[in-house]
Amino acid sequence: MKQLTRRSFNGLAGKGLLGSALIANMPLANALSTNKNDKKLGIALVGLGSYSTYQLAPSLQETAHCYLAGIVTGTKSKEAIWQEKYNIPKKNVYNYDNFDTIADNDSIDIIYVVLPNSMHADFCIRAAKAGKHVICEKPMAISVAECDAIINACNENNVKLAVGYRMQSDPYTNEVKKYVREKTFGDVKFVSSDAGYISKGNPDQWRLDKSLSGGGALMNMGVYSIQTSIYGTGQNPIAVSAQEFSTRPEYFKDTDETITAQFKFANGAVAHMMTSHNSNGNRLKCHCSKGWFELDPAHSYGPISGTTSNGDILKFPHKKQQALQMDDFAKHILMGTKNVAPGEMGKRDMIIVEAIYKSIDEGGKEQLLSLGNMGIVS
Amino acid sequence: MKQLTRRSFNGLAGKGLLGSALIANMPLANALSTNKNDKKLGIALVGLGSYSTYQLAPSLQETAHCYLAGIVTGTKSKEAIWQEKYNIPKKNVYNYDNFDTIADNDSIDIIYVVLPNSMHADFCIRAAKAGKHVICEKPMAISVAECDAIINACNENNVKLAVGYRMQSDPYTNEVKKYVREKTFGDVKFVSSDAGYISKGNPDQWRLDKSLSGGGALMNMGVYSIQTSIYGTGQNPIAVSAQEFSTRPEYFKDTDETITAQFKFANGAVAHMMTSHNSNGNRLKCHCSKGWFELDPAHSYGPISGTTSNGDILKFPHKKQQALQMDDFAKHILMGTKNVAPGEMGKRDMIIVEAIYKSIDEGGKEQLLSLGNMGIVS
Repeated sequence: MKQLTRRSFNGLAGKGLLGSALIANMPLANALSTNKNDKKLGIALVGLGSYSTYQLAPSLQETAHCYLAGIVTGTKSKEAIWQEKYNIPKKNVYNYDNFDTIADNDSIDIIYVVLPNSMHADFCIRAAKAGKHVICEKPMAISVAECDAIINACNENNVKLAVGYRMQSDPYTNEVKKYVREKTFGDVKFVSSDAGYISKGNPDQWRLDKSLSGGGALMNMGVYSIQTSIYGTGQNPIAVSAQEFSTRPEYFKDTDETITAQFKFANGAVAHMMTSHNSNGNRLKCHCSKGWFELDPAHSYGPISGTTSNGDILKFPHKKQQALQMDDFAKHILMGTKNVAPGEMGKRDMIIVEAIYKSIDEGGKEQLLSLGNMGIVS
Repeated sequence: MKQLTRRSFNGLAGKGLLGSALIANMPLANALSTNKNDKKLGIALVGLGSYSTYQLAPSLQETAHCYLAGIVTGTKSKEAIWQEKYNIPKKNVYNYDNFDTIADNDSIDIIYVVLPNSMHADFCIRAAKAGKHVICEKPMAISVAECDAIINACNENNVKLAVGYRMQSDPYTNEVKKYVREKTFGDVKFVSSDAGYISKGNPDQWRLDKSLSGGGALMNMGVYSIQTSIYGTGQNPIAVSAQEFSTRPEYFKDTDETITAQFKFANGAVAHMMTSHNSNGNRLKCHCSKGWFELDPAHSYGPISGTTSNGDILKFPHKKQQALQMDDFAKHILMGTKNVAPGEMGKRDMIIVEAIYKSIDEGGKEQLLSLGNMGIVS
């Protein structure tokens, strides 16, 4: 049916009958219609920082269902470099002033917002209004309200939305999900997860500026541990408590340095997590009634490493997680496969982030969560 | 000097000049004088449950500086079995009614109290009053006040006191302490430790009866995680917060099922721990500024298993931890070597236990600790 729609729409577009007003009302079809080879969707990266430069752009050289079609950057000098390196036509190069005119560019199907956290909502909403499908880098935004605004904008403009949760497309993660789902090691009793690194260097980096990041370790690596706690149990938590630790306040001026949090789950599982900008940590361990399984590292760019109480050493062919992630989203758009990281998942995690900060503000008091199955997609 | 004292005292004893009144006033000398071969101290086990049966008694067949000299049991049928198996003379067999007459038995130098937690203080104090050196199984008692009473009794009666912290004599533990002390991997930033098992079977077991155990997981396995958090950082914590999780209240009637706790340290290290009677867990991982080291398992009967970020796999000859532990204590008495698990260490851990329970009672509120170097012996 999608294919039919796409073909039908292509017909209209070919006849020049579609003005921008109509496009704004039919963005899904619009996005699909611009797929030049009917297989690969064009992605534009918004923000050409290190993640776009060293992870996303190289990954887009390996994707089967999408490709690097355009860029949006505020740094003029980057334009020519990227154009040459990735064979990007001038018409697909935007800056932050003319960004909204991307609505008129049929070569761009998906806009991937890779800006500092506080800018996610603004650009995701504008991308949606431009009729483009949206990938929003994690964390989805800096508040639940912003997540709602992004989700609403995508719904209203009938575009698809995914959060940049690369681990959701990783085979090790999915093996863990299978263990949980199939109770390979029995019921999960306890999950321990860490996600952190030691932040050094420029104290003016945007991650250490709350106005741009919305928070410190929790808004960065912490989201991975929230995610592992959830796919490590297969459930959303029903309550959370948290603590903050500060030992280098001169460096971490207004963002959190280290946070620990504890989760309760309805099935009796318990989890605790640690996230830090002052300590390394990269692990998920699930203790079950009949054994255990572990990923360590659990969320680096891979390959991930996994072991189990059966003596198994997990081994999957290594592919760039971001390539798998963007292909998953492209397939979702093209073929209607599952959206493995929908906006609802990003919003759920932001609800948890806000509850963690609230618990810290209230001296570690437990915060009840009413998430149901929100964001659980497998 | 100790040796001189011992020799001098032996001279008096040999002349039959020492009555029981004098012995009561000079219990250290008394204990030493009763060492028949001047190398092996006689140990009496109080309480012949599974730990004595399957760990301590077999370990005492491997000790170089002490031996199984006597038993104290309330179960008449065990007397003959143990006497025969371990060649224990009738005169070294006691029950709980005649226990205090052990003061008159020169064959017993050390009394090892292996009873349920709530009985530790009573029997350790009586052992001290009997002029015997004391090993108190962990946890030391069920309150800080009881720990003080034990320590005072030992001081007043001039006998030595150790807590049954077998891990303090384990070579893997001591390698970890060396890493911390020598900063082999830089400064410790974060310590994660787990200590738990899934409790099943008889719900009437003493560990699940608060009047006997003083508490659940925390008073059992939790003490290991408190210990690993401390030797994983080389410091005593300056604050702790904690949470309790209950999912099987019908089984864990009045004792804690799962507890998580977080520690702050003056040098900026952070630790979190999990202890449970409803989940497995047996681990210490220390993330440092330049690497990491891990023990997993970290506190089972051995062999312990250790790895580091250098790719090292720790490997030490396996000896029974309890044999090493009891020999360490015997050497402390005989040769004046360090007491690796003094009463002050057990008291410190009980201060932390009480702070954890208080934090739980106060909804996770952080509890400040003023421990200084209390109980830190290496």
